[in-house]
Amino acid sequence: MIPDKVEIREVALRDGLQIEQPIPLRAKLELLTAVAATGVREVEVTSFVSPTKVPALADAAALAAELWRYPDLEFSALVASPGGAARAVAAGLTSIEYVVCASDSFSSANVGRPTADAAAAIGDIAGIAHDAGGSIEVIIATAWDCPFDGPTPARRVTDIAESAVAVGIDRLAIADTIGTATPRRVTDLLAAVRPIVGATPLGAHFHNTRGAGLACAYAAVQAGITRLDASAGGLGGCPFAPGATGNIATEDLVYLLGDCGIDTGIDLEAAIAAAGVASSVVGHGLPSALLAAGDRKRN
Amino acid sequence: MIPDKVEIREVALRDGLQIEQPIPLRAKLELLTAVAATGVREVEVTSFVSPTKVPALADAAALAAELWRYPDLEFSALVASPGGAARAVAAGLTSIEYVVCASDSFSSANVGRPTADAAAAIGDIAGIAHDAGGSIEVIIATAWDCPFDGPTPARRVTDIAESAVAVGIDRLAIADTIGTATPRRVTDLLAAVRPIVGATPLGAHFHNTRGAGLACAYAAVQAGITRLDASAGGLGGCPFAPGATGNIATEDLVYLLGDCGIDTGIDLEAAIAAAGVASSVVGHGLPSALLAAGDRKRN
Repeated sequence: MIPDKVEIREVALRDGLQIEQPIPLRAKLELLTAVAATGVREVEVTSFVSPTKVPALADAAALAAELWRYPDLEFSALVASPGGAARAVAAGLTSIEYVVCASDSFSSANVGRPTADAAAAIGDIAGIAHDAGGSIEVIIATAWDCPFDGPTPARRVTDIAESAVAVGIDRLAIADTIGTATPRRVTDLLAAVRPIVGATPLGAHFHNTRGAGLACAYAAVQAGITRLDASAGGLGGCPFAPGATGNIATEDLVYLLGDCGIDTGIDLEAAIAAAGVASSVVGHGLPSALLAAGDRKRN
Repeated sequence: MIPDKVEIREVALRDGLQIEQPIPLRAKLELLTAVAATGVREVEVTSFVSPTKVPALADAAALAAELWRYPDLEFSALVASPGGAARAVAAGLTSIEYVVCASDSFSSANVGRPTADAAAAIGDIAGIAHDAGGSIEVIIATAWDCPFDGPTPARRVTDIAESAVAVGIDRLAIADTIGTATPRRVTDLLAAVRPIVGATPLGAHFHNTRGAGLACAYAAVQAGITRLDASAGGLGGCPFAPGATGNIATEDLVYLLGDCGIDTGIDLEAAIAAAGVASSVVGHGLPSALLAAGDRKRN
């Protein structure tokens, strides 16, 4: 039942950095070099959104121009509109992630329009990605809870999933944007979404804001999920809880999965080193457990 | 399969404080008052061990003399020898926990004798507890891994469990002393230990040193365990990894279990408040996720 391989997508460069103070392009490349050394394959590298709303990622096109340096990595970029998708494609990033927030309040706060309007753009964005020879992943945000509206009805998530699959997206993911999910609700929501997506690859994105991020990730793996997002060092705060943790740490997830006999293709020592680089480039400590404690003794 | 109730034992006063700088008795009572307000029932309150090895708990007898103030709590004390058990009983603490380290190297480093010698004392200590009208719990430490020897063979754990049950102990627990366990190994070891203990209540004790503490706790609950240790605020470091996290945080565990529909009898807001008091009495920050992020919006 439990898969023997899980693909971890590294999101430190995008979700990790997005609420940090902007750092120089050369620091991003330093982090990317450390990430590349871990053996990870997929990297969410930046977003093409408003540079005034997310100044830390305002250098998206300049960063994209440097990615030829990393031939072994597959890069994706997050967008919030067809215009953003067009800019990503123009910059050479044709693997597109488009976020649709399942709660209206969060959607309005985040992108200035309710869920239905955001979902209606999936077709246009898919067209831009596909016309460029690329692919589109829809990420359903606030899939479990909204900081404003409370628990998200599962039906709001499955409705978005249905319309996205009908449009012909390439991948779907559901995201615990504010880090409130717990294992049983992970199991329940995945059971509701799984039948809808059919053969479309389904991933999950967890935050560790209430300490349950790894427990949720493992619950997802127990439910057959083989695509998970994580961030080097746990880089990335929670904008709705100042001082609280955001993304689950890549090296902590690699430790847990590897110790459970699940292959991620990522070298743990290299992942711990990348977490150290992540901490160094942002100039502060990170919540990673492995960065503090190190690996266990193996023999 | 998943139980609908789990009993959490609060260990901040003992496992939490033991490697901290000593704090005044009145500060311990302040923490205990906050803990009592959470609705928790069982509290591991101190240990009767060498005051030079564990100066933070040198006031064990003085603390014991104050416990009449908390009539709703059930207190236990940890011991490392028959002499410690006699002192605990003399101080009025007749619910005894006796730790046996499953790895010889850890046992020798911790109590100056190998596992077999430590296990041989279970009968004497059980006798002291039972003669006083009390009870004895054997806690098998380094049950998954040892910081010196690496992975602990399951047979070493089951051998201790067998001899302990044969002596007529009242409860057994297995402890991930250094925070290296992960869900699949939790499931595996519990499957090996469960048939041995029969009707003897079986508990588990996890540390969050590699970030997997809550995932392990949930795996244990999935395996039918209904007794878990946790520490207010996650108080308690890892002596083998300076700067790293030790105990899982009570409030984080209460959040996770409660959100999964599992009753702990503990009020989450009061538990978060107790975590704040724990941080205050030791004078530094704690790794609790809920203390930083707070509860999720419920409606």
